[in-house]
Amino acid sequence: MEFKRLTPYEEALSIVLNDLKEIEEVEYVPLKDALGRVLAEDIVASYDLPPFDRAAVDGYAVRAEDTFEAREYSPVELEVIEEVPIGENPNKEVIAGKAIKVLTGGKIPRGANAVIMQEMVKREGSKIYVLRPVAPGQNISFAGEDVKKGDIALKKGTILRPQDLALLKALGIRKVPVKVKPKVGIIITGSELVQEPSLEEFEKGKIVDTNSIMLSALVERYFGEPILYGVVPDNEDLIRSALEKAKRECDLVLITGGSAFGDMDYAHKFVNLLFHGTTIRPGRPIGYGERVFVMSGYPVAVFTQFHLFVKHALAKLVGAKDYEVKVRAVLEDDVPSQLGRYEFVRVMYRDGKAKVIKKKGSGIISSLVQSNAYLVVPEDVEGYRRGEEVWVTLY
Amino acid sequence: MEFKRLTPYEEALSIVLNDLKEIEEVEYVPLKDALGRVLAEDIVASYDLPPFDRAAVDGYAVRAEDTFEAREYSPVELEVIEEVPIGENPNKEVIAGKAIKVLTGGKIPRGANAVIMQEMVKREGSKIYVLRPVAPGQNISFAGEDVKKGDIALKKGTILRPQDLALLKALGIRKVPVKVKPKVGIIITGSELVQEPSLEEFEKGKIVDTNSIMLSALVERYFGEPILYGVVPDNEDLIRSALEKAKRECDLVLITGGSAFGDMDYAHKFVNLLFHGTTIRPGRPIGYGERVFVMSGYPVAVFTQFHLFVKHALAKLVGAKDYEVKVRAVLEDDVPSQLGRYEFVRVMYRDGKAKVIKKKGSGIISSLVQSNAYLVVPEDVEGYRRGEEVWVTLY
Repeated sequence: MEFKRLTPYEEALSIVLNDLKEIEEVEYVPLKDALGRVLAEDIVASYDLPPFDRAAVDGYAVRAEDTFEAREYSPVELEVIEEVPIGENPNKEVIAGKAIKVLTGGKIPRGANAVIMQEMVKREGSKIYVLRPVAPGQNISFAGEDVKKGDIALKKGTILRPQDLALLKALGIRKVPVKVKPKVGIIITGSELVQEPSLEEFEKGKIVDTNSIMLSALVERYFGEPILYGVVPDNEDLIRSALEKAKRECDLVLITGGSAFGDMDYAHKFVNLLFHGTTIRPGRPIGYGERVFVMSGYPVAVFTQFHLFVKHALAKLVGAKDYEVKVRAVLEDDVPSQLGRYEFVRVMYRDGKAKVIKKKGSGIISSLVQSNAYLVVPEDVEGYRRGEEVWVTLY
Repeated sequence: MEFKRLTPYEEALSIVLNDLKEIEEVEYVPLKDALGRVLAEDIVASYDLPPFDRAAVDGYAVRAEDTFEAREYSPVELEVIEEVPIGENPNKEVIAGKAIKVLTGGKIPRGANAVIMQEMVKREGSKIYVLRPVAPGQNISFAGEDVKKGDIALKKGTILRPQDLALLKALGIRKVPVKVKPKVGIIITGSELVQEPSLEEFEKGKIVDTNSIMLSALVERYFGEPILYGVVPDNEDLIRSALEKAKRECDLVLITGGSAFGDMDYAHKFVNLLFHGTTIRPGRPIGYGERVFVMSGYPVAVFTQFHLFVKHALAKLVGAKDYEVKVRAVLEDDVPSQLGRYEFVRVMYRDGKAKVIKKKGSGIISSLVQSNAYLVVPEDVEGYRRGEEVWVTLY
């Protein structure tokens, strides 16, 4: 038996994305646990940042106009009327002919509109001698120049990074509204699979299950909480019941093995698939329906299916933005491809160049290990030539 | 007071990297906890992968030479002498005129040197009719074609990704030798800093400490275990004793605030610095010595210092390879710079283009939030022009 029709990749992906809805649940996590989580709502600044005009250097707060005549050969003399310790308030106001000593980060006193760096003046007792003019605003960080009250400081869908946490903290956000991680059920099928390798098992034709750890880690990396439903032998009833349980308990289900039409491929029978069989290579027999991806058994096919479909599905579920990086790279090898295939080509990207990984089989895990990016050859392209510049997506 | 000499960036970085030694400690973590950790030794395959010749498709194991005469109009007849269930062993041997049914992933029977896809034959009872020749080796995954026994499957210094975990599992590695995370002490200094914002505190000229959360998250992301020593007011004794404690307990110490020569800048006095003051902008006053980075107080300066120095120091401590991604990008704006400065320019990289973030102050956290990469303008370059192609490093 063969696929009646191979759904073109872009069409298949649209089917998935149209079928899934962004999850609504929000949880509030402490800042220190928010790294890598997806912001569930826009964060609006409830005050200006910085909250007041601050000195950008150690020096003297002055009226800029008092310094306009200052020259090295005819310094302007100003009287220092106050010295403000850091973290405290100036008490006085700067008026004509006066200056107040301020420290970096300190509040600008009333009346002042500039700060002169202390290296730029001569100090004698309570007097300073200004050698050069300063412009209005010089060495001042103005209130709101980072973020203004009422502005959106961080957008819904942001995948939180260290600097985002810094901004959240500055804005007084202690518990961050993030999307609840979608529960992703993982079912591995295959009577040939064992968890512990041994020569004895190999003699029997058994091999080690690698999809459970790989998919768990991929799901973790892309916003999800993996839930393992174990390795199920090739038995219709066991597969059906594992699927039913996972569908009840999870937001998304990944089942590997059993997507093709081999003698032991059952999984696709128990799901109302919206498509089954696509133009992607490797990983052609993928199917999707009822929030279930029916995936291949071979690790390279599974990895491909994850990046071309599941990653985008997870991003949709949490509303994540900017979750992949595409870069230009000069090909170091030819990339042949057949028309009609959406080819997923593993490459090693480094410093603007992409080296094609030659080992091709769907079982060759080392081809994934030796690569860090992929390029795709769409259905209507016959391949690329060495020296061409192409887009690669990092993984 | 000013810096006597600004150490050029590359020279300063070399000083740091020459001073630090890779840590020796290795710990063995379960595969599921190994994502993102740094492999502490080469992993050598103790057996072939796959461990035996496997069928790459469902079909019939044959001697290829028996099929060489097969044509659609004159099929070759072979007798099926066994059907091997998945995960079990073939018992018989394929001899001339015979075939054995095998499933994808199954062991290749003795005597066979190719597999015919089942779609390519007509089956009638115990006979198959082969319509086309198959080549020797066709549809067989050979033992060792992924990884050969004795080969290095994964190299020391690899930052473990999902596919790497899959390969480790396939090779029977259950506990992964990874570098112990270096302990990174973080000391934040500044009497003006508070943890909770309030208008009352702002009125007093206080601002919110953002460096502790940002540095913790950066350290976590780059292989380290952050250890917070709290926010220390600008007091020589307190700063000195926090530094002494952190130096005793940690592999690396980051202290922010107090690297410059302002009235409240103490930290640099308590460390034998190998350099103090560099050509980088922002973040010029950074100093390093005795496994301590004396850093700025402003978050953008701290972030810059982290990426230009601390990140590389952490990578050195754990021996991590390939921890940064550099991509080519076309500049959408001019980037002016002064000769003699090693300028760290925040950009938003997307699809091959880099937009320069215009907000420049060292306190402008939103400039970090709105960017995802940096480019550097070295000391001997006066800047770049809109439309030029430059390297940017993603963060």
